[in-house]
Amino acid sequence: MTRLRSERALGEFELIARYFSPLATSHGALGLTDDVALLRLRAGRDLVLTADAIVEDVDFLGTDPPDTVGQKALRVNLSDLAAKGAKPIGYLLTLAIPADCGASWIKAFAAGLARDQRRFKISLLGGDTTRTSGPLTVAITALGEVGSGDAILRTGARPGDHVYVTGNVGDAAVGLELLRRKRAARKGANALVSRYRLPQPRLDVGRELRRVAHAAIDISDGLVADLGHIAEVSRVRIVIDAWRVPLSVALRNHCGPMEKTQIRAATAGDDYEIAFTCSPDKAAKVRALARKSRVAITEVGRVEKGSGIALLDARGRPIRLEKRGYTHF
Amino acid sequence: MTRLRSERALGEFELIARYFSPLATSHGALGLTDDVALLRLRAGRDLVLTADAIVEDVDFLGTDPPDTVGQKALRVNLSDLAAKGAKPIGYLLTLAIPADCGASWIKAFAAGLARDQRRFKISLLGGDTTRTSGPLTVAITALGEVGSGDAILRTGARPGDHVYVTGNVGDAAVGLELLRRKRAARKGANALVSRYRLPQPRLDVGRELRRVAHAAIDISDGLVADLGHIAEVSRVRIVIDAWRVPLSVALRNHCGPMEKTQIRAATAGDDYEIAFTCSPDKAAKVRALARKSRVAITEVGRVEKGSGIALLDARGRPIRLEKRGYTHF
Repeated sequence: MTRLRSERALGEFELIARYFSPLATSHGALGLTDDVALLRLRAGRDLVLTADAIVEDVDFLGTDPPDTVGQKALRVNLSDLAAKGAKPIGYLLTLAIPADCGASWIKAFAAGLARDQRRFKISLLGGDTTRTSGPLTVAITALGEVGSGDAILRTGARPGDHVYVTGNVGDAAVGLELLRRKRAARKGANALVSRYRLPQPRLDVGRELRRVAHAAIDISDGLVADLGHIAEVSRVRIVIDAWRVPLSVALRNHCGPMEKTQIRAATAGDDYEIAFTCSPDKAAKVRALARKSRVAITEVGRVEKGSGIALLDARGRPIRLEKRGYTHF
Repeated sequence: MTRLRSERALGEFELIARYFSPLATSHGALGLTDDVALLRLRAGRDLVLTADAIVEDVDFLGTDPPDTVGQKALRVNLSDLAAKGAKPIGYLLTLAIPADCGASWIKAFAAGLARDQRRFKISLLGGDTTRTSGPLTVAITALGEVGSGDAILRTGARPGDHVYVTGNVGDAAVGLELLRRKRAARKGANALVSRYRLPQPRLDVGRELRRVAHAAIDISDGLVADLGHIAEVSRVRIVIDAWRVPLSVALRNHCGPMEKTQIRAATAGDDYEIAFTCSPDKAAKVRALARKSRVAITEVGRVEKGSGIALLDARGRPIRLEKRGYTHF
């Protein structure tokens, strides 16, 4: 569905009353009758806060279905909570809407949010709508909770740790490329495109990792780039074996030589899988939680003393990378 | 200062490290080394959450000084907390930056934020930066705290209540008009322009109102429009006497006939004063807290049974309004 210029523009309050108030299901959202939401945590809980925005034609395409735009905006935030082991509570939504964006687009966008709210058991808590002369922009602040001190941070990686990643990487970047080249109708493309449009926040795995992982991050910029962030703030060196980087069947069928695809997949981004490090003696626990959560978890590297990040070929030699991952700037 | 096209574009991480990490002064912000912030509240506290965005050429002007743009983005959010009686804690900042926005603009923007962080004793907690092909957009989610159940909501106005407003209204709208007409250099214009650029969140008054007000709102859309929101969700009628609407000396000197100016001021918006209702027997307390906080507080109307909002002339007749206040849509 594209945005319809011919539709009558809804007033801000009409828009909120019709499409967003029904999403404010939690008591503390006050039915969006106030400018604020109220939240009370049980004792012994830490609040986990994250903010991520998606901008049309930067982080999503104007031709993406509006319901998946809403879902993607929400899920990239839930993915941040997942990587910390947090349980999501709710979110605040700030929407900058271009003049050509009609009510049917907003309705479908809100329907996508409603679907994911039920799926992830969360509520809209508040937000803001404003007009913009620029691209549609969805800024979300998501809130989660975790037992005090239980959040898995980026700073805890230790030399000797093994490095793992959930699921597969690289699908979303190829899915986006297929959309941009208008080849999304090709056989096998759908699996890749849907990975671009609908990331799967690994909330269940994240919760289980609280007692397992030393450090964790969700992969938005790329496996190499994001493990690079862990290496930097944990003050360690991380090496990744390119040949172990997990690829989906869809991606293997779609792409050329395996090693080249793995390198590309490791530096592409938009995967929203969790990369984490843990002590080698947790290997059995990692296997058990992969079985329990039905998500593949692959060992891809290790943590060493030193600094920096390296992607190694099958002979253990560092691969020269043009880029580590996606960057906005 | 205008944005400089000639400057080298900073990378996202450089930008964050140089200008935003120094703003992450609270422990829970994790120095912006993670994608999340952690927050622990004392027992018996409610978290108060609000989100407001400002968009270039909608909510601020491209010619506004970058430090006041940062301050305004923050203060419109703090104003929401003020009206609830909450004490601010911190904020998450999502910044969508056009390609022509250079490092010196961002530096000055961050300096404005730093100044207000010290003033209001708050910390940056997290956020996101992204590129946009559209106007510069600053989306903030602010967090505050209040004793459990102490937040002043919009729903508590009762028939018989008196209606008050802090400070003066109407300055900001005229300040904006002067800027748009390029008449900001005129004598007396500065006081009006600075009210547009730098709203004063009434945090001290708001804290004191916790044990006084039945309902409160900060005035962003306009005195009449915002008291209309209280009337609607409290299911009461509110009447405002136009002749009591408080105007600054600067506005009275600038504008024409008093009553016309008062009507305009009551429907203009961008004031960020607090309008509240309370029992008539709290009149002495209201006077005392005005003295204590050194902010004028003016009785402007009353709450009645019924529904809707009315602005009355000096003879008590309803004034026909073309609009109740500012609207984005």
